[in-house]
This record gives sequence, structure tokens and C-alpha cells, in this order.
Amino acid sequence: MCDETNMTEAGTERDRSKKPSKSVCVYDCRPDSSDALARTLDIANVDYNGFLQALKQLFSLSTNETFVISTTDRREIDEELYKELVDGKTLHLLKSVNQELSVATQERIEYLPHYHTLVQCGMYEYYASEGQKALPYAFAELIDNALSATAKNTGIRRIEIRLLFDESQGGPAVVVMDNGCGMTSKQLNNWAVYRLSKFIRENDMFHSEKPGYERPSPVPRSLNSDISYFGVGGKQAVFYIGQSVRMISKPAGSPDVHEFVMSKEDFERKELNREDIYSGFIRNRKPGDFSHVNVIEEQFLRSIVIEEDGKESFTAVVITGIQPEHVVYLKQYFSLWTRELAHTYHYYIHGIDGNDKRKMRKTDHFSNIDIQISLFERSPRIPALVNLRDVDNDMQTLYVSSSASTFEFKAIGARDSLVEGLIRYHPFLYDRETYPVDPYAASAGPLEDEDEDCVVLNSEGRGKQPIFECFWNGRLIPYTSVSEFEWCKRPKKPGAVPSECYNRISGVLFANDRFQVSTNKLTFMDLELQLRDKETIFTRVHNGQEQRVKIEREFTNWLKDCHERFDKQVMFQGFQGLMTREDV
Amino acid sequence: MCDETNMTEAGTERDRSKKPSKSVCVYDCRPDSSDALARTLDIANVDYNGFLQALKQLFSLSTNETFVISTTDRREIDEELYKELVDGKTLHLLKSVNQELSVATQERIEYLPHYHTLVQCGMYEYYASEGQKALPYAFAELIDNALSATAKNTGIRRIEIRLLFDESQGGPAVVVMDNGCGMTSKQLNNWAVYRLSKFIRENDMFHSEKPGYERPSPVPRSLNSDISYFGVGGKQAVFYIGQSVRMISKPAGSPDVHEFVMSKEDFERKELNREDIYSGFIRNRKPGDFSHVNVIEEQFLRSIVIEEDGKESFTAVVITGIQPEHVVYLKQYFSLWTRELAHTYHYYIHGIDGNDKRKMRKTDHFSNIDIQISLFERSPRIPALVNLRDVDNDMQTLYVSSSASTFEFKAIGARDSLVEGLIRYHPFLYDRETYPVDPYAASAGPLEDEDEDCVVLNSEGRGKQPIFECFWNGRLIPYTSVSEFEWCKRPKKPGAVPSECYNRISGVLFANDRFQVSTNKLTFMDLELQLRDKETIFTRVHNGQEQRVKIEREFTNWLKDCHERFDKQVMFQGFQGLMTREDV
Ligand SMILES: Nc1ncnc2c1ncn2[C@@H]1O[C@H](COP(=O)(O)OP(=O)(O)OP(=O)(O)O)[C@@H](O)[C@H]1O
Ligand SMILES: Nc1ncnc2c1ncn2[C@@H]1O[C@H](COP(=O)(O)OP(=O)(O)OP(=O)(O)O)[C@@H](O)[C@H]1O
Ligand SMILES: [Mg+2]
Ligand SMILES: [Mg+2]
Repeated sequence: MCDETNMTEAGTERDRSKKPSKSVCVYDCRPDSSDALARTLDIANVDYNGFLQALKQLFSLSTNETFVISTTDRREIDEELYKELVDGKTLHLLKSVNQELSVATQERIEYLPHYHTLVQCGMYEYYASEGQKALPYAFAELIDNALSATAKNTGIRRIEIRLLFDESQGGPAVVVMDNGCGMTSKQLNNWAVYRLSKFIRENDMFHSEKPGYERPSPVPRSLNSDISYFGVGGKQAVFYIGQSVRMISKPAGSPDVHEFVMSKEDFERKELNREDIYSGFIRNRKPGDFSHVNVIEEQFLRSIVIEEDGKESFTAVVITGIQPEHVVYLKQYFSLWTRELAHTYHYYIHGIDGNDKRKMRKTDHFSNIDIQISLFERSPRIPALVNLRDVDNDMQTLYVSSSASTFEFKAIGARDSLVEGLIRYHPFLYDRETYPVDPYAASAGPLEDEDEDCVVLNSEGRGKQPIFECFWNGRLIPYTSVSEFEWCKRPKKPGAVPSECYNRISGVLFANDRFQVSTNKLTFMDLELQLRDKETIFTRVHNGQEQRVKIEREFTNWLKDCHERFDKQVMFQGFQGLMTREDV
Repeated sequence: MCDETNMTEAGTERDRSKKPSKSVCVYDCRPDSSDALARTLDIANVDYNGFLQALKQLFSLSTNETFVISTTDRREIDEELYKELVDGKTLHLLKSVNQELSVATQERIEYLPHYHTLVQCGMYEYYASEGQKALPYAFAELIDNALSATAKNTGIRRIEIRLLFDESQGGPAVVVMDNGCGMTSKQLNNWAVYRLSKFIRENDMFHSEKPGYERPSPVPRSLNSDISYFGVGGKQAVFYIGQSVRMISKPAGSPDVHEFVMSKEDFERKELNREDIYSGFIRNRKPGDFSHVNVIEEQFLRSIVIEEDGKESFTAVVITGIQPEHVVYLKQYFSLWTRELAHTYHYYIHGIDGNDKRKMRKTDHFSNIDIQISLFERSPRIPALVNLRDVDNDMQTLYVSSSASTFEFKAIGARDSLVEGLIRYHPFLYDRETYPVDPYAASAGPLEDEDEDCVVLNSEGRGKQPIFECFWNGRLIPYTSVSEFEWCKRPKKPGAVPSECYNRISGVLFANDRFQVSTNKLTFMDLELQLRDKETIFTRVHNGQEQRVKIEREFTNWLKDCHERFDKQVMFQGFQGLMTREDV
């Protein structure tokens, strides 16, 4: 077995060494050969006849002995194919081309994942059945990373998404920036390694200083900013949005900026030239140094590099080669998708109580997270700019501001799994339900014109919608919802509370990291299943205290109380039938 | 720039060459150095002091000049860290540790995808919200591959799934076998390359004979057996089911069997030993040679190898390290998941008209595909065995056999996209709707006991269910359904056909490969969106002829006709009110 051979062509792995060496590994498979004798033959400067001569000598073939030399796929090596042999190939020496293998042979192969593993990783991940809602969730992956990176900031945590669509400045480009801890060159290298999750990573150059992953300590509603799990999110997001990414990062405490480019074009070039596919260069440089930015299409990069001066640490993710249909979508549905992001990060932006205008003066739940989105188009179009904190029509804001009372609870399961939950009551007032309606969801199919204000009359409250939206480590998992639990379900038989009150509740679940989500963070794996487990215990939390009474009873009492205190019904009493006023 | 250095530690890439060479690449970054001078230093047999001396000499440092030698992350290389330096490391020569970089430097990194790319690829792909239905679709990926492989068989196409759960024979193991074309060693190598799809593959050893991908010519209902797309299915499936796979294959026309093992354990070992992660061995041997099967846990392998004798070509996928919960599921829900597979491949198994018992004598749509599933447990338990063709309670069978008439149509869109479709009429007979009800779907939540026959009374036909199940290249895409089209929708105003007739239709769509599916083949990307496109033209197909009349009109007439011909209503006429019989 010639396993020390330097393999170069098998699989997609190419010429690593660039040395002009060329050798083959030949197994003697003739029926009478007793052992799987393998020999390496250097054929770098040998022609076909020389090769045959060498073979004869090596395996002591007598001059008149017939033999066949073939690939492991039984392709006979003739003069033509001989020229195409690549370094490291395994060959069989046979008596005849169809002779059975007297001994087994081993053939070394390489099977590097194809670069589509990176370039196409996001493509099929962020789809939605109607192909519409995907893009905001790709951005969410980049916001997730920025939230993690800024978790330990003492001052403001600034996250910026800039859409640079003014083509006179180059681009189009999408830039996601944060003033977080940045990445060392080693960490930037790690960023590029697909599926290298935080749980299995060495962050330091040196083994002696390997820090393990530390699980963050529990915080209310699991707003721990530790929203990474698989080691794929950033790559999936950038290659879903575009075809090239330039990561620029300055780690805290270092004077240097590290820069790394990964692009579809690069991969293609490397494949064509048979270079190492997963090899590249990090550029180490001083902040503000844009001497490497030369092409006119990347004008905008200069200003980004110039901004670096004076920043203690930062990361900028610069995506180019943006899919044209994404550019159209991002412009056209600007308020739609920014609203979706405001919804996704509602509790990070507004603090654990959410966007409650009525509690404005209370500053103890102040959030120092600033997520700003700006859209630059060719002048004279003025830039559009929105701070997610100012969005006030996302569903969570609508729920928070129309709620009259809140019922809090906790579900504790096996292995530290914890869900905090709350149910809100949206009363009936005078002539209508106040349960909020999603103005966007109402229009089935793709939105034609998002400026069109469509006010939907909400006649039956929640209707058949599920009660709970679900958050994981504080951020929304958009495609999972939980309908209800046994204890807050409308009872079959009419009870103490009018049945329509069960249509006046909305809810939120905050799951911690013991629950698993899909790699695209669009769905929980088994949240509902786990919550239905008999081991899972629900308790009401009232004024911060866990109540050891039956939650069903507590809930029903709360609901009854809400109905009595908040529902204001106006009734037409003493209706006498239709009358016609004769006098008009 | 020292890019010819042999990198070994950056990223997850390890020691490729095993030569004990060790060199570092040092950039002169002192403020007064004019150029980014990089020099390679061989430090294999040099101690720390020797290293400093060499540095001084190389960069002509004067004896009293102060300098710092550091990593690109500004870690100063002292005597301790020097020992940990790995081959290929890039270092900076600085005046002081915090000095800014006068020139930019380049650092070669490697970023091989982590092996979790393979080992965990299926884990989050085949989930379902309730964690239940995933497994059949992992098997489906292996059946897809077997269908492709047997597409050109002239005789019977035999696909077998064996669950070897008799632990006295080793295992548990899952074996998927087919009598298809098999794989050459090169193709087996390609199999292992993640994301290497058929579209970008070289199948031959030699570039001169590279065959491109040939799109199969259109066949009715797109039953073309070409059900592969991404180059991930097999890997995702085996690592979702278990932790190790042995691929055994004999290509047609070759006397040799090729064998390749990929396993989590193997990857872990290679990482630990810093060996090449994506490197392995194919074993070439004669059929029936089990000399390499030694461990007692793999007893069952012997019989599989012995079976090889006399087979012209085949592929066997042998999965071990089966997740225990899968073993439980596969035993417990045997009839549930085999039924799901029968549903998925309904038209492959039964031919283009489906499982129509009433057309039994018509042999022109005969299918030569045999998919057999067997479950072996420890004796005295007798093996369970089912041929998918014999399953007669899958939904498509229920639809086919309760249908009274069929309306066929075609939708043609841009770029060769084609959907063939049909709608079936399930009449009202005497006292009940005949629209079939899924007995399994009826029980919400996980099935407690699958033997319990629950007959559900179907009072309103289809109800709110979508009309169409959707197939892609002839196989079911289970999580996508299409509710209706404009032309077969129940009209707002009562029309010529009673409204309840619209509840008596079921439908099937057969999409061709121009439509995209998600990588797990559980969802279409944008089938409905594309079908709603105004460019898409629907035409009725009647007796094999396309009708150039408005499809809406055709459909309404058909439905009216169905109602008049097939619905048999029994009415109680002359109801006079409740009477009480005094005589009893
Ligand atoms: N903005 C950032 N600032 C600092 N480090 C970052 C930033 N973005 C990414 N990283 C680093 O790169 C790693 C890889 O990011 P990526 O999003 O690809 O995967 P992940 O966050 O680890 O896992 P997930 O798949 O859940 O997103 C992160 O774990 C983090 O260490
Ligand atoms: N049973 C088989 N017989 C012959 N060749 C096979 C078999 N199974 C897999 N292969 C080969 O291995 C390749 C890789 O299979 P895999 O299922 O991993 O990806 P794919 O089928 O190409 O794409 P997809 O991701 O859509 O499944 C196939 O394209 C096929 O060439
Ligand atoms: Mg991430
Ligand atoms: Mg496949």
C-alpha cells in the first residue's frame, strides 16, 4: 500500500505541492502473485516504453509474459492514456484485463467538499414557500453575529446595515458593521471554516492557551446575545445575498486590521488553476490603509476603510456581487423587511419589557443596542434611514401596546431547558376587538404596493391563529409558533369565562439554548414536543414570584379578571324592530 | 510573500506531508523598513536563541537594536511560545509590540470545511416540526439514488431496504441495495465529495473522456428516475440515520467490487492524529471476498458480501451506528413509514396511472420497479416484509381508487418548465362523501398505537385541505401542497355547479426538473409562485389531446358532468315533522 504517495488528482483535491513529481502505485494482481505487493514507480521523466520496461523489471516479468496494466476501473493504460496519468494514481498489474482480483488493493482517495459547500450553502436555506420572506432572515444571521460580538461592550452597541446602491460609487454592496470585539487573524481564519462551531473551536494560535466555550449565565428572557450555534450562519447569509464577501476586522487591543476575501470567482479561479481550493490570504494592515483598493467598482470601500481610524475595534462584512433581484426587493420593500427585523430583535432593541410606550419613564430596562439600516441610491434620491428602535408597527409592538394585562409563566424541563412565557390580554373596547391584526399578512400573495394602508377590521380577535410567537436566545424564530397549551385552551364546555375571551390573548415564548433550532434559524426542532412532555412543569410567575398553584386555575382566574376589568361592551338594549321615520 | 510554504496548522488543515520540516515566514514591519520584505526561515532544528540570531542576521539588525518578533495577532514570541510555533506560521518583526504596521502583510491561511459538514449535514435537514416524519425522507434519498442507478436496467429494477436489527448478528444496521449500474472507483470517489453534483462532475479518470451531464428526455409525468440534484442527499441521509457508512459497489462491465467507508469515528481519529481529514481508501477486491470483515459486530456483513457472487452490478449502502431512537421508531411505526414511502414513490411503483385496481388488465403501464423493505429482529421474532407495491392504504392509492373521473391538464412556463396535473372527482354516494380521509393524519400528535383502526367519518369532503399533492421528477415533495388555481376555485357567487362539488376533488401536480426543490427535497422553492405567473399557460388535456379552449370553462363543465353522473344522493322527501309513536 503506497499511502505515502502525494495524491493530487483523485477527488477534487488538486496539486498541493506543485513539485513536478509524478509517480504511480502499482499492485501486482496477477493470479499467481501470492501477496498484494505494491510498488511505487517514479514516472516523471519516463515515456510509455520506459514505463513498461520499468514495470517488467520491478515485477520480474519475463520477456514473453503477457500482462495488462490498468486503472482500478480496468481501463487499460495504453500510450494515449499513459500521458494523462496523474501523480499518485493507483494501477493494477493483471494477467488479462478481465481477470479477477486475486488480492484486494487499497487506493488512496481525497474527497474535499466541493466549494459549492460554501458558495451555495445559503441558496436553498433561506427560501420561503413563496420566495418572499427569505432575505430579512439572511440579514438576521449577520445581526446575530454582531450581537454576539458586541455583547461585552460597555457603551453603546452599534450595528449598522448599509445598502450601497449608488452605482456611481461602485457596488451594489451590502455592508454590515458593528463596534464589537472584532476578530484576531486566528478568529478570522476560524470564521472561514465551515461548520466550525464555537463549541469545538480553538481561538488562540497556541494550544497551551485554548479557551473552551463558556455557556453564558442565564438572563431574563434568554437575551444573552449568544446567538450562534453551527458555524455556518455568516457564510450562508453572505452567499445568499451576494457572491463575494470581504471581512474586515480589528480586534480590541491590537493596532492591526485583518482583512479576508472569500468569493465565488476566487474559488472558480482556484479550481481552474488546480490550486488549493480552501487556501487564501489574510491581509494584515494598519487602520485606514486603503492602498489595496484599486478597482473603480470598489470606490465605496475607500470610505469604509477611512472610517476605521480611531475605532478601538470593529467588524465590517462587505458583500458584493449582490443578486439583482435582491437589490430590487431591498429597495421596494424597505419598510416591510426592516419591520420584520424590528420584530425579530424586538426584545434586544427595546429591552425585556418590549416597546411599551406607557412605561416610557422607567429607564431600568434601557437597551444600549442600536440597529440602524440605511439605503443609499444614486443622487438626487435621498438616503432612507431607519433605526429599528423607531419601528412601531412590528407585531410585538402592536401586541405590547394593545395589551391590558399580562400573565407570566415558566416551563422547566430536563437538562436545564427553560422557557419563559407570557400571555397578554387584548380587551374588547366599546365596538371592536383590540387584538392587533398584521396589516401585511392580510394581503394574500406578494404585496403589490406597500404604501397602501389597508386597515383590516378585526371582528373575531385572534381567530384560529396560534397564541404564541417563539424566541430563541431572545430572537424570533419566525416559522415556529405554538398554538396553545392544555391549561390556556378554550374549554370544551362553557366555563366561568366567556368563550370569546380566549380569542383575546396573544403570547410569547422565550426559549433558552437548550432547545434546538434548524441551521437557518427559521424553525425550532421540537419546542412544542418538548413542552408537551409530561416532565415539563409550568408555573405561573406573579410579581417575580413563582406560584406553586395549579397554572390552569391561575390562568382562568386571570382571564376572568381581565374580562371583568377591561372588556367594555356597548350594547343596544331594548331594540324594538326597524322603524321608518316618516318625517324625513 | 511566502506562499510556497507548506501550511499545516492554520484552520483545521493538519500536517499533510509528515515531513519534519518547520519554517516560518517573517515580515519586516519596522517603521523604517521601506518594503514588505518577507523571508522564510527554516527553524526545524533551531532553538530560541538560534532563531533570534538567524533573525538578526537575515534582517541585518544591529546588536543593540531593540525589536520584537510576534504573531500576526501581536503575541510576542518568547521562549515558551517559540516551542509551539508550527510550520508555515507568519510572523511580524516589529520595533515595539504596539507599533503600527508600516506595510501590509499577507498571511496564508487554510479553511477546510470542518468534518461536521459531512457528519452533521443531515441532522438539521430532516427534522419536522414534531420530530416525527423525518426518517422516511432520509430513506427516500437512498431510494432516489437507487432509482437513478437502475434507470437503464433492462429487467427488473430491484431496490431493497433491510433493517438488520437482530443484534446476535452484529449491528443494528440498515442496508439499502440496488441492482443498478454501480459505481466505478472514480464514481465512488465522487460520491464522497460533498456538493459535487452531477452537473459539475467528471466521471472518468481521464479528462479526455469527460462526459457532461445529459438531461433525460421528457417522459410522461416526469417519471425520469433522475432524482438527484445537489450532491448531498446520500451523505445527509446516511449521517442522519447513523454514524458510519460502508459503500459497496460493483460497476457493470468490471469484475471488481469497490468499497469505501466513511464514519464519524474515522474523522475523529484523523483530527486527533492531525491526519488529512478528507483522505481515505477505496478497497478494490473480487466479489464475495470478505477477508476484511473481522469484527464480530459486523457478522451481517459477511452474508452481504457472499451475496455479491454472480451479480453483474450492484450498490449496497451499509449504515451502522444507527441512532437508537431511530431503531425504536423503525420497528414501532413500520407500517406507517413504509406507507409513507409507498406514497412518495406511488407512480414509480405503479406506473403513470397509479394503483388503479380497476385497470388491472391493462399492462401497458407496467412498472418494473420493485422496492422491498424487510425488518429482521432477534429470533423467534419473524421478519416483517413489505413490497411497496402491495401497500394499498397510501393516500394516492386511496385517491385513485375512489375517483370516478379525472380531469387532466398541463401548465407550461418559461424555460421548459412543465407541470402535468390532474384532478379527480370523488362523488357523494348515497349517504356519505367518498373523498378519502388520511386515517393517520386524523390523530393529532404522535400515534400511540398504529394497529388501532380509526375510521373517521368524512362529512365535508376535502374541507379546507389544499387540492394538490406535488411531485418532482415523479416523486412526492411532501411538505409542499398547492391549494387551488383560479380556474378550479369555488366561485364566490353560486354557479352552475353546487358548491359542495368543489369539496369532492383531489389533485396531483407533476413538476419537471425545471422547478427547484430544497436540498432535503421536502419543499419546492417556488412552485406555486411560478404557476401563478401570468406567463404560465394552463391547457386541458383530453384523451391525450391539448384543448385550446378556456380551461376554466372546461373544468366547470367537467365538474358539472361529474356531479350529474356520479353523485348519488338519497333524500328524505316529504318530511312532516317529528312524530311520536304512541304504540311503543
Ligand atoms: N461581526 C462579528 N464580530 C466578531 N466575530 C464574528 C463576527 N461575525 C462572525 N464572527 C465569528 O465568526 C464565527 C462564525 O460565524 P458564523 O455566523 O458563520 O457561524 P456561528 O455564528 O459560529 O454559528 P451560526 O451558524 O449559528 O451562525 C462566529 O462564531 C464568530 O466567532
Ligand atoms: N445506489 C447508487 N448507485 C450508483 N451510484 C450512486 C448510488 N448512490 C449514489 N450514487 C452516486 O453518488 C452520487 C452522489 O449521491 P448523493 O445522493 O450524495 O448526491 P446526488 O444524488 O448527486 O444529489 P442529491 O443531493 O440531490 O441527492 C450520485 O450522483 C451518484 O452518481
Ligand atoms: Mg452566526
Ligand atoms: Mg441523491
